[in-house]
Amino acid sequence: MSNYERPNVRAMQGYTWGEQPQDGRTIKLNTNENPYPVSSRAQAALDNIDVSALRTYPQPTADKLRDAIAERHGIARNNVVVTNGGDEALRLALSTFVDSGGALGMATPSYSLYPVLANVHGARVVEVKLNDDWSLPENLAASLNAGGAELTCLVNPHAPTGILLDQERLEAIAADLNGVLLVDEAYVDFVTPERSYDSMPLLRRDNVLILRTFSKGYSLAGMRLGYLLGPESLIDPIVSKTRDSYNIDHISQAVGLAAFEDLAYAQQGWAEVRSERTRLANALGQLGLSSPPSEANFILVNVPETSGSTAASLHAHLKAAGILVRYFDAPMLTDKLRITVGTAEQNDALIDNLSQVLT
Amino acid sequence: MSNYERPNVRAMQGYTWGEQPQDGRTIKLNTNENPYPVSSRAQAALDNIDVSALRTYPQPTADKLRDAIAERHGIARNNVVVTNGGDEALRLALSTFVDSGGALGMATPSYSLYPVLANVHGARVVEVKLNDDWSLPENLAASLNAGGAELTCLVNPHAPTGILLDQERLEAIAADLNGVLLVDEAYVDFVTPERSYDSMPLLRRDNVLILRTFSKGYSLAGMRLGYLLGPESLIDPIVSKTRDSYNIDHISQAVGLAAFEDLAYAQQGWAEVRSERTRLANALGQLGLSSPPSEANFILVNVPETSGSTAASLHAHLKAAGILVRYFDAPMLTDKLRITVGTAEQNDALIDNLSQVLT
Repeated sequence: MSNYERPNVRAMQGYTWGEQPQDGRTIKLNTNENPYPVSSRAQAALDNIDVSALRTYPQPTADKLRDAIAERHGIARNNVVVTNGGDEALRLALSTFVDSGGALGMATPSYSLYPVLANVHGARVVEVKLNDDWSLPENLAASLNAGGAELTCLVNPHAPTGILLDQERLEAIAADLNGVLLVDEAYVDFVTPERSYDSMPLLRRDNVLILRTFSKGYSLAGMRLGYLLGPESLIDPIVSKTRDSYNIDHISQAVGLAAFEDLAYAQQGWAEVRSERTRLANALGQLGLSSPPSEANFILVNVPETSGSTAASLHAHLKAAGILVRYFDAPMLTDKLRITVGTAEQNDALIDNLSQVLT
Repeated sequence: MSNYERPNVRAMQGYTWGEQPQDGRTIKLNTNENPYPVSSRAQAALDNIDVSALRTYPQPTADKLRDAIAERHGIARNNVVVTNGGDEALRLALSTFVDSGGALGMATPSYSLYPVLANVHGARVVEVKLNDDWSLPENLAASLNAGGAELTCLVNPHAPTGILLDQERLEAIAADLNGVLLVDEAYVDFVTPERSYDSMPLLRRDNVLILRTFSKGYSLAGMRLGYLLGPESLIDPIVSKTRDSYNIDHISQAVGLAAFEDLAYAQQGWAEVRSERTRLANALGQLGLSSPPSEANFILVNVPETSGSTAASLHAHLKAAGILVRYFDAPMLTDKLRITVGTAEQNDALIDNLSQVLT
């Protein structure tokens, strides 16, 4: 431990990332990757890259990608900033809108990176606890305002439950908040179309940012691409001031664009995830592991005492069998497992393994 | 302008990046890229990448690359952190070692990104002016300590002059500083071997970080790869706390490793840059544009009043001819141009163009 560390950094714990075995054999249902492969157009774009293009700096603001994103969402280039995964988007929102010594708002439990980034930034965390049924408390905005939250991150669909909040509720929260509301839509691509969820009208407000990522919906977790949408008044300081000047490398700009433009292919994968999600939730329910209705690519299952197992023991059992799922030793979650929806074969392997212990 | 921006962000100016035309025709001598192509081994590594590997998160700490870097420098994996270019390394050093409201030390003029990053961080900048002959003032460390600098960035070879400070002077500065000394060696690969410059012994100290980049020496500016070396007490909090969890994407880890391991090829390019640097400095000198002795891949030329031109007018003249060089409207630099050493053909084109105006 060094005397040179900032006090807030010295005092904090780093983010605990999910295990990332590189063996290619493990059934990875622990970090919510998309089970289906990247678009073949991404491979074609990659095959087309001549390393001589890497000799010079990349286009600083990833404008081709920004334009494609803007067109998809019916907004302008200046309403988009491209980031190294959603994680960089979150960090940049903090560094742009939260004073050091200021506060980040969140509803807990949620994405465990939020408080880590706040700690790095030297900001306080204002936590509002979810109700026992995972719903947001009525006084959410008032509590966050009372705590001085300059930025509030709400993940929707929620992690780790997968529950989707409708856009009217988000709009009401944004209207009541004194600070910026960042709607973290990392998992939004997996929402059932019949839900008619559409957060884009929120961008008419001056205090809303919407986060998207290529990691889940476009099977590009290994590439680190995400983006923020928002009014130009919120996006411009990120693009022109707080972002590293060349934050997106040349290859990611080209390959990401190709994957993003192959929307029909991506949508096919999202539909398969939804179909497997229903099947998996039903099968787990038959094993006594109930879950809230998920609109994401994961399911949060409850491991009841009557099962004769604990979430921690099931996690260990599955790991021994080469299947990784996520266990969080955190309030409201110690009797739960978060399980990524895999391919049909992976889900079958999971169910088979759990059947051996639970029946 | 938004009411939601932090006051320090609202008040600041963003970094002015050098122009990055993507036309492939411009002679780019403005942002210190390496004129020689990337190693063919990097192309082979790129050609070998299957996008299916991008579906999952990358190895979080880029350990294969860390190990290769550690081996090259005769240190351990835990003394290395890999970053998205040198820029991310600088930002991380600030976020790890400088309090908000604290101070970043620097000698001016220098890399214009340092004060921008300090502004983003909400830190003050303690500037110590270089002497008129570009040498560091004797009271450097005392002035930085008096200003409360928690981190001091010194670029060596210096930018924008290219002058190399010897390691004994750096060691003395580090010994006198109360805070961390970051030696920014972005251009170190171009130092004449006969100078026997070796900063690695500084890593025995508990307050020194050394920054390197792949952008210049390995012709990979478009890929965004750099690294910091230091004692584990300084490196570990960056690796485990302040860094984004998956900061280096899968492709960069693989392609960067291949380029880094092709040392013989890279060294050949460095030697050619040195040879062209001498030729270019001599030719510019004959045109009346003198320069300090550069150990980097650029030359800072003085445009004297007697030349009948100004630095700004030469910059504009060259730009009209499709040749970009860098002009800084900043103290000590308004009568200077920073010119990247290009290929022999590019340097000839530059000299030809200048000859038309200056003779």
